[in-house]
Amino acid sequence: MKALRFEGGELRLAEIAAPRRAAEALVRVSLAGICNTDLEVVHGYANFNGTLGHEFVGVVEESPDKSQIGRRVVGEINVGCGRCQPCQQHDARHCLNRTALGIHNRDGAFAEFLNLPSQNLLIVPDKVSDRQAVFTEPLAAACEILDQVQINASHRVAIIGDGKLGQLIGRVLATTGCNLTLIGKHADKLELAAKAGINTLALQDLKTDPAGRFDFVVEASGADSGLQLALDLVKPRGAIILKSTFHGVVQLDTSRIVVDEISIIGSRCGRFEKALQLLEKGQVTVEDLIVGEFPLSNGIAAMAAAQQKGMLKILLKTSV
Amino acid sequence: MKALRFEGGELRLAEIAAPRRAAEALVRVSLAGICNTDLEVVHGYANFNGTLGHEFVGVVEESPDKSQIGRRVVGEINVGCGRCQPCQQHDARHCLNRTALGIHNRDGAFAEFLNLPSQNLLIVPDKVSDRQAVFTEPLAAACEILDQVQINASHRVAIIGDGKLGQLIGRVLATTGCNLTLIGKHADKLELAAKAGINTLALQDLKTDPAGRFDFVVEASGADSGLQLALDLVKPRGAIILKSTFHGVVQLDTSRIVVDEISIIGSRCGRFEKALQLLEKGQVTVEDLIVGEFPLSNGIAAMAAAQQKGMLKILLKTSV
Repeated sequence: MKALRFEGGELRLAEIAAPRRAAEALVRVSLAGICNTDLEVVHGYANFNGTLGHEFVGVVEESPDKSQIGRRVVGEINVGCGRCQPCQQHDARHCLNRTALGIHNRDGAFAEFLNLPSQNLLIVPDKVSDRQAVFTEPLAAACEILDQVQINASHRVAIIGDGKLGQLIGRVLATTGCNLTLIGKHADKLELAAKAGINTLALQDLKTDPAGRFDFVVEASGADSGLQLALDLVKPRGAIILKSTFHGVVQLDTSRIVVDEISIIGSRCGRFEKALQLLEKGQVTVEDLIVGEFPLSNGIAAMAAAQQKGMLKILLKTSV
Repeated sequence: MKALRFEGGELRLAEIAAPRRAAEALVRVSLAGICNTDLEVVHGYANFNGTLGHEFVGVVEESPDKSQIGRRVVGEINVGCGRCQPCQQHDARHCLNRTALGIHNRDGAFAEFLNLPSQNLLIVPDKVSDRQAVFTEPLAAACEILDQVQINASHRVAIIGDGKLGQLIGRVLATTGCNLTLIGKHADKLELAAKAGINTLALQDLKTDPAGRFDFVVEASGADSGLQLALDLVKPRGAIILKSTFHGVVQLDTSRIVVDEISIIGSRCGRFEKALQLLEKGQVTVEDLIVGEFPLSNGIAAMAAAQQKGMLKILLKTSV
């Protein structure tokens, strides 16, 4: 089968055997999404070698759970050891020995087939199209925020970053009825968010006036300056949700964190059920974030396109 | 009256008139404690000019609340504007226009007399001595942690720092029955904590083994490296409580915060009631932290002594 692999520091389109983890399900991938994490992996993040990709929707070809065969599925990307404390608490996302699809010790979704344990798979409701379902993983990551902090209609909330992640977070947080502002640098993307019903503010128009501070600030820009800007924007006793994985080492003035008792909360993957529910009920729009679709055979060109600054979602059509 | 003041970048013992804020209570200070924040103020923190000091116990000479006159009191150091949102929610500690005793726009406790609004004062129970009561403010700051996170007997908790703040936090957190370890560099101070019933670990014996990580890590060392060490020690989904105000700008690897969904929670002043209760019930010992007592007239020498690295609590006896 075809697979887009990162090996020995090089991205290449390979012809390899379909994966065969006998205890796991075999999924024929229909559509996969390129995420910033994939781009980071190609820059050396996570020290990964293998088939890239973790956002996908596909059809089950084989599974120990026979009821899954022939069904459309999405899949939780983390596979736990099953024995440690987080796994015992059904939290493979924080297993220290986990593998992660296309990120850590497990071949990913930019291929014609992938393996995942059957319990990682979720059936996609009929009402949800492939082009919607492929957003389940990043949408779940956005939903994770609502599992970590209580946001309601009384709160003022800011999101920093108008890229793929900021856009999805905006759509999810808008469902709470909070007073929401998406802050970004790109007029076209702010317009896209506005069309989805989100209040927007251009970064250059932002005033960091203490009286206008926010209860919650979500950092989704990934910019080095994002965390410090979030600190400037958050109220005393407010919380910053840190969503971008690719900051690396940043300079941080910790005195304001202590004096104003601010919380900084790291936020990563989320539960797929919530994301699929939002899609099924039509509570969030996602297809407007798709800017292009490439066949897997043009995967290298697709990755190059996705690397362009400010690019929204690019999909790989992986089935023949 | 005598007052130890910081003015024009200089520490000096002055003879000034007793303070006269007519709407406030007048307290004759009996005993005051030198806190690291006082030392920081002398190094330019908070840009303060005036009488230093915010940890005190004293006797009320005058008050709009006549029932306070002649009583022994301690006092909340933050005075809010009374009109803003935090003040309306009885949280003067986070009022943007607040003054703070000996720290911000308000003369402090290293003097024979001080003013505070009568509602800032709390009567000291008879069972609590002056030498205990003078710890109410820093003890309340330690108690604040338990208002912010739920710590119980099932949790593994580490405190980084064996100084004044770490010692008090250790004594407060020990009351929860949690599995507690105080990590420090100073054999004598670790011994002091051990005598107070706290498990201790010398920094050089610390192993940052992922399997031995902690649910909560309290950073109370104030060292530049403290926050990064806390990140190395905390479990996935664990919380770091950041307690020291004097880190300044630190380098921080944010990727672990996000990937392991760690929370960093700034923690400052706390409620005095809880601290007084712990002292009254004898649930925490504090007098063992006193290393010296100076008359206010020797205040400059007392501050010099307090500046010595690793010094525990030094008191100023301010009454004649």
